[in-house]
Amino acid sequence: MSKVGIDALSFYVPSLFVPMEELAARRDIPYEKLRRGLGLEKMAIPDINEDAASFAANALLRLIEDNTIDPRDIGRVYLGTESAVDGSKPTATYALGVVEEKLTGKWGERAFRNCDVVDLTFACVGAVDAMHNCIDWVKAGNDRKAIVIASDLSKYELNSTGEYTQGAGAVAVLISENPSILSFSDTWGVGTSSVGDFFKPRRYFNKTDLAVSLLKESGVELSEEQIDTIVTQAPSEFWNDGNALVEVFKEEPVFEGQYSNQCYSDRITEALEHFNQQTPTNFLKDWEYLVFHLPYAYHGRRIIFSNWLTWLEENDQMDVLLAETGPVGDDRKTWERAASKSEMYRQFVKDKIEKGERASSLIGNMYTASIFMAFLSLVRSCFIEEEELSGKKVGFIAYGSGSKSKVFEGRIENGWKKSVSRVKLFEQLEERSVIDVELYEKIHRGIQQESVEAHSVITLKEIETEDQNTKGLRKYS
Amino acid sequence: MSKVGIDALSFYVPSLFVPMEELAARRDIPYEKLRRGLGLEKMAIPDINEDAASFAANALLRLIEDNTIDPRDIGRVYLGTESAVDGSKPTATYALGVVEEKLTGKWGERAFRNCDVVDLTFACVGAVDAMHNCIDWVKAGNDRKAIVIASDLSKYELNSTGEYTQGAGAVAVLISENPSILSFSDTWGVGTSSVGDFFKPRRYFNKTDLAVSLLKESGVELSEEQIDTIVTQAPSEFWNDGNALVEVFKEEPVFEGQYSNQCYSDRITEALEHFNQQTPTNFLKDWEYLVFHLPYAYHGRRIIFSNWLTWLEENDQMDVLLAETGPVGDDRKTWERAASKSEMYRQFVKDKIEKGERASSLIGNMYTASIFMAFLSLVRSCFIEEEELSGKKVGFIAYGSGSKSKVFEGRIENGWKKSVSRVKLFEQLEERSVIDVELYEKIHRGIQQESVEAHSVITLKEIETEDQNTKGLRKYS
Repeated sequence: MSKVGIDALSFYVPSLFVPMEELAARRDIPYEKLRRGLGLEKMAIPDINEDAASFAANALLRLIEDNTIDPRDIGRVYLGTESAVDGSKPTATYALGVVEEKLTGKWGERAFRNCDVVDLTFACVGAVDAMHNCIDWVKAGNDRKAIVIASDLSKYELNSTGEYTQGAGAVAVLISENPSILSFSDTWGVGTSSVGDFFKPRRYFNKTDLAVSLLKESGVELSEEQIDTIVTQAPSEFWNDGNALVEVFKEEPVFEGQYSNQCYSDRITEALEHFNQQTPTNFLKDWEYLVFHLPYAYHGRRIIFSNWLTWLEENDQMDVLLAETGPVGDDRKTWERAASKSEMYRQFVKDKIEKGERASSLIGNMYTASIFMAFLSLVRSCFIEEEELSGKKVGFIAYGSGSKSKVFEGRIENGWKKSVSRVKLFEQLEERSVIDVELYEKIHRGIQQESVEAHSVITLKEIETEDQNTKGLRKYS
Repeated sequence: MSKVGIDALSFYVPSLFVPMEELAARRDIPYEKLRRGLGLEKMAIPDINEDAASFAANALLRLIEDNTIDPRDIGRVYLGTESAVDGSKPTATYALGVVEEKLTGKWGERAFRNCDVVDLTFACVGAVDAMHNCIDWVKAGNDRKAIVIASDLSKYELNSTGEYTQGAGAVAVLISENPSILSFSDTWGVGTSSVGDFFKPRRYFNKTDLAVSLLKESGVELSEEQIDTIVTQAPSEFWNDGNALVEVFKEEPVFEGQYSNQCYSDRITEALEHFNQQTPTNFLKDWEYLVFHLPYAYHGRRIIFSNWLTWLEENDQMDVLLAETGPVGDDRKTWERAASKSEMYRQFVKDKIEKGERASSLIGNMYTASIFMAFLSLVRSCFIEEEELSGKKVGFIAYGSGSKSKVFEGRIENGWKKSVSRVKLFEQLEERSVIDVELYEKIHRGIQQESVEAHSVITLKEIETEDQNTKGLRKYS
């Protein structure tokens, strides 16, 4: 059976960013805590006319153009996202539609006419699921090609503990036979448990209650009956659509940071075990690089530390660590803190993890796109530093809140350099425009009316407001 | 390579329904128009403590219990829905979590610990996508088992043209090697085009505008500045969360019925073509049954009529139809209307389509579950009427607005009767409780406070309202 994996990569990151140093100053957080503790430097901010569909469209278009792909050869475009722009029509179709239009000149009408398109949703692991399924599909046929897009927008409440881990963007990968960059093995480890560590619920409000709270604040005293009449007659479909309840959607999630870290740790440990049951693996020796889902840049190196200790035991290397740290003693926690700062662990991080973190430091959390961006960060960093990757094994450790981990592996192919040479990741991140915290807050709160920049990329042109039959439909150009 | 397909089926439909005759009377629509024109008899209505996750959980639990499946053997639970209860945490995990708890007594803790779970969204075709991928996954391994769940809630505005096509419920199928009911061929026809025929957008409202419209109706005259202050200080997080805009989610879609029919027709024609390019097929002769996505019971027989005319041409049978109808003449539309009522077409519908429609007449639109329910309706009807199915070919014609069609086929296996004997579809639909239009409207508008029935099945127990870290989390029991 032929090899299947990643033949080409592309990305899109919004052109605006906030320097973490400025945000930290405004929020009264020591910048060094964010920089050295979490690895945060810059935070990508979408302009007001950007969303998960426009990110995806830009990544898709770049992948096709930069790699001179004939779009009619693409049998699938599968999108992973937890920032879907619609509850029914897949975000993938919005992206596909505008890209298909742009390709008309070169490839004719309806280049994606027979292309299978769908959205997959599982918090930050949905795009890994999309890729997993596309790999199986490519393997099941002859010369099939699929594009997987991971596109997301990480938005937290202003002044919340999540605020400095925001980010946005998309990564697209071409999955094919005999790939030039990476081929995947057939083993997938899975760890699943239904928990509420992080989610985006609908929030229900009773309209009468909403009216009461507003009228009270205005100093108006009315009976509940009078208020009910006002609600049903107020000239806005928000009020008068006949429903007693309104369901509010917010991009900002409900989450419990510490608990979510624990879930992440538990699930990846279960998924590693499940992987190992299927294909016995010496994770310490067999995997030359580790690529993680990164809610923040240094999350992977933090979360894998306890597994690393287990791996040392399994490889009879614990004595090397103990020689550096001294014995564990009565207080294991203190020793673990020391061990996590040991030269031995630092070297492990530097050799196997750090190159994958670099892009995250400059972008922030890309949710389901972040593990794909970590892989791009790794290969692009190695390309720049002329570190040879061919034949090396990469372990992937994905996590989605809610919760599921997927663990899988791939081997770098000989053609990686040529394909990666086309993806000017760090160069393009350098070309972004800085915005200040005031402007960022205006965008965040929905007060900013005009797009900050005139973009040459695909953006949201308008949302239909007039035609009742298509009210709410998003149009991109 | 071994056969892969459907080994077992289960379903869940809410226990409440409204008779179409009553709704028609209240809406001043001739009942016969709905009954004879669209095939509508009853409309399933979810109780107030039911949603797409609880439907899915009930279907999943029934599938496992009725077929004595060891849940630890299930490698995947893939859910298709366009009624997701959360923007990030998959609806599948909510279902899995509560079912896993229920199975603890028999199978121990964490029966789904290594089970791969995810949601797929593409309007009414998402669960077909889920199944397509699970078939590939089962084929790629040894003795793998996957469960695919289609779960949805079709809700339209009161008094709208979509109101009488509402419905709800879930179907679950077990996908395995050497299936007892149906094995799928490897050919999948796809037709895709990004359109806005039906979708569930976020609806943006400016809070100040909302306040203005309400205060105006209350006779209060305030400056915009005063209103802004009131909005930011009103004691509800709806008003005072700092965002200028609020994004409202509604189950009720935005749609254009006629246009959507056209999209459905165009896409299935493209998908049939694509199927035929890969595996030349005489659709008229090779497919003994046709199973459709059914927005209403008679939609399939209506939409396929023009394709049927083409198929007659291809099979040199047009003269048989013309012998019945007389020549086409100048007015093709009039002739087509007559031809659609011809004995020849009636026979085609009766032989190949009608048994698949029966459940839809009694339930209504189940969105992504409707094509699965149509298949169940077909096999259960044949079981009851002792029509032998073994060895017969079934063509599946799926459609999701937005828009994509998938066309695929399967052959009935010898074990179908035994497996289908366990699914008491029509018997259980008979056991439901009728509700009147008043009560239905109360449920629809969110006014009904108490659940109508005391359910013995899995329902939504509560939505967390106190704990800030899990506010909005849904709990089922």
